[in-house]
Amino acid sequence: MFLRNCWYVAAWDHELIDGRLLARTIMEEGIVLYKGESGQAVALRDRCCHRGALLSMGRREGDCLRCMYHGLKFDATGKCIQIPGQEVVPAKLGVQSYPVVERDHIVWIWMGDPARADPSTIIDFPYLRDPRWKGIPDYLHYDANYLLIVDNLSDFAHLAFVHTRTLGGSEEYAFKTKPVAMERLERGFRVERWHMASPPPPFHRKVIPDKTALVDRRNIGHMHVPGTFFLESLFAPAGSGAEKGNLEGARQYRNCQFMTPETRRTTHFFWNYLNDFEGNDGNVSRSLHASLIEGFMEDKAIIEAQQRVLDADPDFHMMAVAADGPLMHFRRVLERLIAAEQAEASRTSASLQAPVSSAAAGRQRATPG
Amino acid sequence: MFLRNCWYVAAWDHELIDGRLLARTIMEEGIVLYKGESGQAVALRDRCCHRGALLSMGRREGDCLRCMYHGLKFDATGKCIQIPGQEVVPAKLGVQSYPVVERDHIVWIWMGDPARADPSTIIDFPYLRDPRWKGIPDYLHYDANYLLIVDNLSDFAHLAFVHTRTLGGSEEYAFKTKPVAMERLERGFRVERWHMASPPPPFHRKVIPDKTALVDRRNIGHMHVPGTFFLESLFAPAGSGAEKGNLEGARQYRNCQFMTPETRRTTHFFWNYLNDFEGNDGNVSRSLHASLIEGFMEDKAIIEAQQRVLDADPDFHMMAVAADGPLMHFRRVLERLIAAEQAEASRTSASLQAPVSSAAAGRQRATPG
Amino acid sequence: MFLRNCWYVAAWDHELIDGRLLARTIMEEGIVLYKGESGQAVALRDRCCHRGALLSMGRREGDCLRCMYHGLKFDATGKCIQIPGQEVVPAKLGVQSYPVVERDHIVWIWMGDPARADPSTIIDFPYLRDPRWKGIPDYLHYDANYLLIVDNLSDFAHLAFVHTRTLGGSEEYAFKTKPVAMERLERGFRVERWHMASPPPPFHRKVIPDKTALVDRRNIGHMHVPGTFFLESLFAPAGSGAEKGNLEGARQYRNCQFMTPETRRTTHFFWNYLNDFEGNDGNVSRSLHASLIEGFMEDKAIIEAQQRVLDADPDFHMMAVAADGPLMHFRRVLERLIAAEQAEASRTSASLQAPVSSAAAGRQRATPG
Repeated sequence: MFLRNCWYVAAWDHELIDGRLLARTIMEEGIVLYKGESGQAVALRDRCCHRGALLSMGRREGDCLRCMYHGLKFDATGKCIQIPGQEVVPAKLGVQSYPVVERDHIVWIWMGDPARADPSTIIDFPYLRDPRWKGIPDYLHYDANYLLIVDNLSDFAHLAFVHTRTLGGSEEYAFKTKPVAMERLERGFRVERWHMASPPPPFHRKVIPDKTALVDRRNIGHMHVPGTFFLESLFAPAGSGAEKGNLEGARQYRNCQFMTPETRRTTHFFWNYLNDFEGNDGNVSRSLHASLIEGFMEDKAIIEAQQRVLDADPDFHMMAVAADGPLMHFRRVLERLIAAEQAEASRTSASLQAPVSSAAAGRQRATPG
Repeated sequence: MFLRNCWYVAAWDHELIDGRLLARTIMEEGIVLYKGESGQAVALRDRCCHRGALLSMGRREGDCLRCMYHGLKFDATGKCIQIPGQEVVPAKLGVQSYPVVERDHIVWIWMGDPARADPSTIIDFPYLRDPRWKGIPDYLHYDANYLLIVDNLSDFAHLAFVHTRTLGGSEEYAFKTKPVAMERLERGFRVERWHMASPPPPFHRKVIPDKTALVDRRNIGHMHVPGTFFLESLFAPAGSGAEKGNLEGARQYRNCQFMTPETRRTTHFFWNYLNDFEGNDGNVSRSLHASLIEGFMEDKAIIEAQQRVLDADPDFHMMAVAADGPLMHFRRVLERLIAAEQAEASRTSASLQAPVSSAAAGRQRATPG
Repeated sequence: MFLRNCWYVAAWDHELIDGRLLARTIMEEGIVLYKGESGQAVALRDRCCHRGALLSMGRREGDCLRCMYHGLKFDATGKCIQIPGQEVVPAKLGVQSYPVVERDHIVWIWMGDPARADPSTIIDFPYLRDPRWKGIPDYLHYDANYLLIVDNLSDFAHLAFVHTRTLGGSEEYAFKTKPVAMERLERGFRVERWHMASPPPPFHRKVIPDKTALVDRRNIGHMHVPGTFFLESLFAPAGSGAEKGNLEGARQYRNCQFMTPETRRTTHFFWNYLNDFEGNDGNVSRSLHASLIEGFMEDKAIIEAQQRVLDADPDFHMMAVAADGPLMHFRRVLERLIAAEQAEASRTSASLQAPVSSAAAGRQRATPG
């Protein structure tokens, strides 16, 4: 039900400082993330192969991790390298490890076939490493399937109704503006939308000196498989010709949002809303951070209720309206990729998820039948 | 599993004042109730046909309701009449609406085939509109199937044990009194029970001047499909001949209780306990209201525990005793009505619950399989 | 899934003083325990045969119990002996009763075929009745299957990692010591383990005058079906020859732990940690009691997390290490006993769990289908 052979955001790098063992469930698998003494980020199945104790309740030793139930020690590849009181460690004993890449403050994880984990396919968002762009990376937990958040971001008409007093500004946005371009991509879509000569929306007004001058507002949204959203926003003085390329007096934002499935009905939501104009005034980032949280809480209330509605009646079918073109394209893309992956998996004999230890002897059911 | 073609109490009218959007689940369907600007009570499926957002998080506009996710607007019949940014609204787009009748402070809802919703079949309890009878309408939520509450009200022997110190008065009631008449009705039953020359029970003693004089107590209970209970109580001076029709010195109560299934295991419980003797002393109603809540809490503790016992072992079968005649008759009546309704539904091709929108194009599963 | 024909600990005797009605679920059956006026301990199914009300919300009358919903009265054998307002009580009406034996402050219950409930098969732990041994009986509730606690107690290497700073003392215990003897018993096992010339572990150090002298430590653990654990611990001056039988200067503990399944995933845990040296200083027992709770909380955190891990993935198979010999033997023993019991049960026509009332007439489903 999830696309496995792709990179997901597992954590911000600051979540792993000081040797912290971070327990995080991704796609219904319990995972422990940590940075070893060497600085290497490690992701292991958070379940000792011996009796199923949580490795995240264990102890980091160098780049290794020791289970603090009976003391089994695992290296960064998941291999068991010590069993207290036992001379020989069976060669195949161990826990699953996951390919992990740390880049631009993001810890990416590959949940599929490790042989295919190619870091060059990690999507680039250069603003996270560009010192000109400032922002505060943060995390929200959603009690909703990640695709409901993808849907939300796929139609900016919701700004008008959900975020009227925060990120949106007015209901006019839904009635008077439409995407000027919708590009169907192989693994996502690109949408561009302009709102000319409108009052600045509340979140933007808070961080600019002139609170009343009308602005021309442009949003360009990119959505990428499996749940990566980039938004390039521009606010230019009304009538200054920004739509023809004149960026004089314009203020811009770069926004990234990463939706990683925790379970079928819960989501890790990583985000950063960056600006290019704060200079040395950290309060701009702090104000934007607060405004965005205010807006996300409005989304969260709607979307989590939506999840409960869908849970209550699995037979309910949504009805598409004209504005659903992007989200419907995205879901078709994703369904095709998942179907292809599952077809291939059933053709190959070795399951992608088989833990290292599954071939070893001495397996035991947890409770007698 | 529920009887659909009948009227249920959805709300007291005071729950809908000031344009409030009341979200209430009835028979496992989420419903939003409100009074339009015209004063008309409206009940719609609380689920936008577009993406499943809660309409109860929306905004009333006149007699209409706007979803505050993407702005779709629905009229009081559930028909979608506006989609922001889209010229044409598909004719069949909409959400289910339910027949609603407001009468004597009660908002009744019809959960079955709208074509059969005949307001003349709404059961009458004239005391709710008679200014001589005073009381305070109220609501309780039960974590129990509504029929367990029906059962409770079907055998007043429980007054003796559950309500000894509140509504009952003594255990004698169970040992020395019996129904003098039990009438099996086509859609319910009528039971009459007398307790002669007994001390007044605590709830009654609190609102009468003479706390010690013995009373002759008469309860006449009516139970009606699906879960409507009326109780006519009379307390007369002991030996005054009330049983022969002499009502001199008698004080009377009229009590209505409406059990509406929220889900299979939870219930909306609406009630009002009216008296004919308070005159201008509102404290009589207030004292009775407090006493009844005290008594209902005793029932609730027993009944909710009973529900948990039944949940824990679906194979448990209850054993009838002699006093269970009324409740067994009622359950047989109800089972027959439900069976007949379901047999008829399977004969007709159009399902009663099919939403207006189900025939429209563009249906989409909520998450990829 | 549980072994039925054996004795389980249902309660400490002090839990039943003052006529208390103790509601306790054992092996997924709700049971009410009480001491009748005669002093006899009684265990009945906590579910009135009439409408399923909780008998533990009822009232003790002599050795009998009255349901406080409609007043049915049951004797200590579960037979219904009174129905208020009804002359004749059907002979077969009643609730299931369970054989109960009170011995050495423990109330034992037999969950299987009553005809086989032989008190002589109750396991003996004489220290509970020997005034020389002092301790404080207590109870813990676990959100974990009882066998995960049995597992925990089957390998004392966990003392080194889970209890380093409480009951264990050092990680050396896991690396340098091993069981010197492991005896496979027909219904359990016996393990003996020595740790020579080690600093006293924290819980022991707190109750002895010399905090620094090294000790020779011996643990002998007995595990018995279904979940009974006895531990005989000895701390002798290092080098005093305790291993050759010289007990001069030794201090000893006798520890009993009884795991009774509440449900498949929760457990009643009864325990007492006794010492033979406190004399009149009750603070020794109190200190040991506090230390043991501290240690049990460490186990509980690990084990309850382990249960959640197992719940999340029923396909997970544990991998045995060398130290798992005792626990694997115990699980094999238990599985064989359960299989034999179930095979026999399917051969006999009368089900062991059929309640007294099941053959009576007038059975009724709780809700209409």
